[in-house]
Amino acid sequence: MAQQHLEPTDPLAGPVTGDALAGYLRSQATEFLRALRQHREGGAPAQAQEGPVDAARALRRSVRRISASLHTFRPLLDADWSESLRPELAWLSGTLGMEHAYESRLERLLLALHRLSGAVFPTQPTAVMTNGAAHPAPAPDRGNLTVGAAKAGALLDRQLTLARTRAHSTALQALGSSRFHAVADHIAVLASEVPLTRTAPATDLRPLATAAQERLEDAVTALPLVTAGHPYNAEALIHGLSPDPSPHPQDAPWHQVRLLLRLHRYAREALTGANPPVDGRIHTAGLCLDRHRDASEASAAAASAARTPRIAPATAYALGVLHADQRHEVEAARFSFQQCWQKQAVTT
Amino acid sequence: MAQQHLEPTDPLAGPVTGDALAGYLRSQATEFLRALRQHREGGAPAQAQEGPVDAARALRRSVRRISASLHTFRPLLDADWSESLRPELAWLSGTLGMEHAYESRLERLLLALHRLSGAVFPTQPTAVMTNGAAHPAPAPDRGNLTVGAAKAGALLDRQLTLARTRAHSTALQALGSSRFHAVADHIAVLASEVPLTRTAPATDLRPLATAAQERLEDAVTALPLVTAGHPYNAEALIHGLSPDPSPHPQDAPWHQVRLLLRLHRYAREALTGANPPVDGRIHTAGLCLDRHRDASEASAAAASAARTPRIAPATAYALGVLHADQRHEVEAARFSFQQCWQKQAVTT
Repeated sequence: MAQQHLEPTDPLAGPVTGDALAGYLRSQATEFLRALRQHREGGAPAQAQEGPVDAARALRRSVRRISASLHTFRPLLDADWSESLRPELAWLSGTLGMEHAYESRLERLLLALHRLSGAVFPTQPTAVMTNGAAHPAPAPDRGNLTVGAAKAGALLDRQLTLARTRAHSTALQALGSSRFHAVADHIAVLASEVPLTRTAPATDLRPLATAAQERLEDAVTALPLVTAGHPYNAEALIHGLSPDPSPHPQDAPWHQVRLLLRLHRYAREALTGANPPVDGRIHTAGLCLDRHRDASEASAAAASAARTPRIAPATAYALGVLHADQRHEVEAARFSFQQCWQKQAVTT
Repeated sequence: MAQQHLEPTDPLAGPVTGDALAGYLRSQATEFLRALRQHREGGAPAQAQEGPVDAARALRRSVRRISASLHTFRPLLDADWSESLRPELAWLSGTLGMEHAYESRLERLLLALHRLSGAVFPTQPTAVMTNGAAHPAPAPDRGNLTVGAAKAGALLDRQLTLARTRAHSTALQALGSSRFHAVADHIAVLASEVPLTRTAPATDLRPLATAAQERLEDAVTALPLVTAGHPYNAEALIHGLSPDPSPHPQDAPWHQVRLLLRLHRYAREALTGANPPVDGRIHTAGLCLDRHRDASEASAAAASAARTPRIAPATAYALGVLHADQRHEVEAARFSFQQCWQKQAVTT
C-alpha cells in the first residue's frame, strides 16, 4: 500500500545517470554563489533591506539542496569529500535559518493572541507590539487585548526579538568566519567540478531516488494516521501539562517525515532538472508538515515564556491558552496531512 | 429542507387527543410523588447515600417533563393554573440541578487536568483531590501532575466543592420550604386530576407537537453548521482571551437548541406514552449538546478560577491550558452534532 502513495518518478522513462546529478549540483552551487554575491552587495547589516533577506533565503535554499543530494546520492559521490562537506552544510543551513525562524514564530504567536482576543490584526503583524529592539514599529494597538494577552504578547516579543537579534548576529559572524569561507570555497569548486565516483557518470540515479521515496513512505506508514484522521482526537495536547518540559516527543516522527519529504522532493529535482513538474500533493503535504512544525515550536515558545520568573498570573493564563491553541494547530495540521495523504492513496 | 431533518411523529397515524396528554401528565406526577417519598425515606442529608441522589434525579426528571408539557401543550391546559405552576417548576428544577452540575463540572475538569498531564486517572474521579469538605476521599495522587496542574486542580476542587456544598444546602432548604410544599400539592392534585380545557379531550395533540419540532428545526437551521462541519475551524476559542468576562455569547444558540431538542423529545413522549420508540438520532444529538453545554460551563469555571487573586503563575498557566482544552471540547461537540444532524438529513 505504501508503494502506491506516491507516483513513481514518472517523467523519467529511461535511466537518468550521474551526469544529471552533476548538472544539478553545479546549478545549485551556481545559485549559491549568486546569492552570496547578492548578499555581499546588499549592504551593511544595519540597513536591513529586502535584498539580504532574500539572499539569505536563496543561500539556504541551495545549501539544503546540495546537502540533500550528498545524502541521497552518496554512493555516486567521492566519499571523503561528501562526508566532510555535509556537516558543514548542516551547520550553515541551521545558522542561517534561525533568524527567520524566530521572526515567523513571533508573528504566528502574536497573530494567535489577537485571534484569541477576537481582534482583527490592525497592520503588519511583525511590526506590531515590537518594543523597538530591532526595528521601529507603529504604536502598538492593544486596545482589544486583555491585560494578560497584551502582557503575554509583550513578553513573547521581548524574548523572541532578543533571540532573533542574537541569531542575526550569529549568522553575520558565521558568514564572516573562516569556517564559512572554507565551505564557500568547496561550493565554488563544485560549481565547475563535481567529484563523482568513477562509475557514476554511467550509473542510473533512479534506484537511489526511489530509495528516498521509500524511506518517506515507510515513515508515513509509521505515523498514527488513523488517529490523526479522526477530528478532535485531542492527542496533540495530551502532554500539555506534563511535568516533562522537553518538546513533545509525539511530534518527532512528524518532523522526521517533513525532512524525508524534502529529501524526496529534492531527489526528484535532481532527476528532472531544477524545475520539475509540480507535484501538488507533495506540495500540500509539505505545507501541512511545515505548519505542524511551526505550531509545535510556537507552542513550545509559549510554554517556555510561561516559565519566566515573576510574571503576572494573567500573563501566565494567556500563555496557557496560547500554548493549547498552538497544540490544537499541531493536531489540525496532522489532520490536514492525513486528508491530503489519504487523497493520494485513493486517486493513484 | 429543515422540514426533512426529523421524521414526523410517525408512530401516530391517527389523532392523539388531550386524553393522552392527561395520561402523560398523571404518570409524570405519580413519578414525582414516588421520587419524593423515596427522597424522604432516604435518610438525613449527612448520610448521603445513593438513594437520595437517584431520588433527586427522578424528581428533576418528572419536573422537567411536566414543565415542558405545560409549555408545548399550553392551549389544552387551564391557562391560570399553567401560568402559575410553570415558574415554580423552573425554580425547582434549577435548584435541584445545581449540586449535580457542580459535581460533574469538577469531575470533568479534574479528568481533563489528568489527561493533559498524560496521566491515567487512578481511581474514582470525583473522589480524587477532594479536600474533605463534602466527603472523605483517598489520598490524592498528584505524583504525575506538574505543580501548576496540581494547584489548579486543588483550586478548582476548593471552589467547585464549596459551590456544590452550598447548592446541596440550598436544595435541602428548598425541599423543606413552604414554596416547595405548594408545588408538591399542585403535583399531587395533577396525579389524579389534570386541568384540561373544555375542548381538550377531543383536540389533536399532534399539531402542537409538530410546532415544537419546527421550533427545533428552525433553531438548528440558524446554527453555524457549515463552519461546525469543518474540523479544526478554531471558532470556539476565538474569544478565549477576550476582555469580556461573560460566558461566550456564541454558545447561546447551541444551548437554546439543546432546550428545544428536549421539548421536542418530551412532546413525543406525551404523544406515544412514557416509553416512546427510541429515536437514536435525537438521542445522539442530545448527547452532543449536553457535552457542548458541559464543556462550555467547565471552560468558564476554569477561566473564573484563573481570576482568583494571588494565585501562582503556574496555576494560572494550567488553568489557561484547561480553559482552551474545554473550548476545543465545545468545538468538538459542535462538530459531532453537525455530523449527526447531517446524517439525519441524508437518511430521511
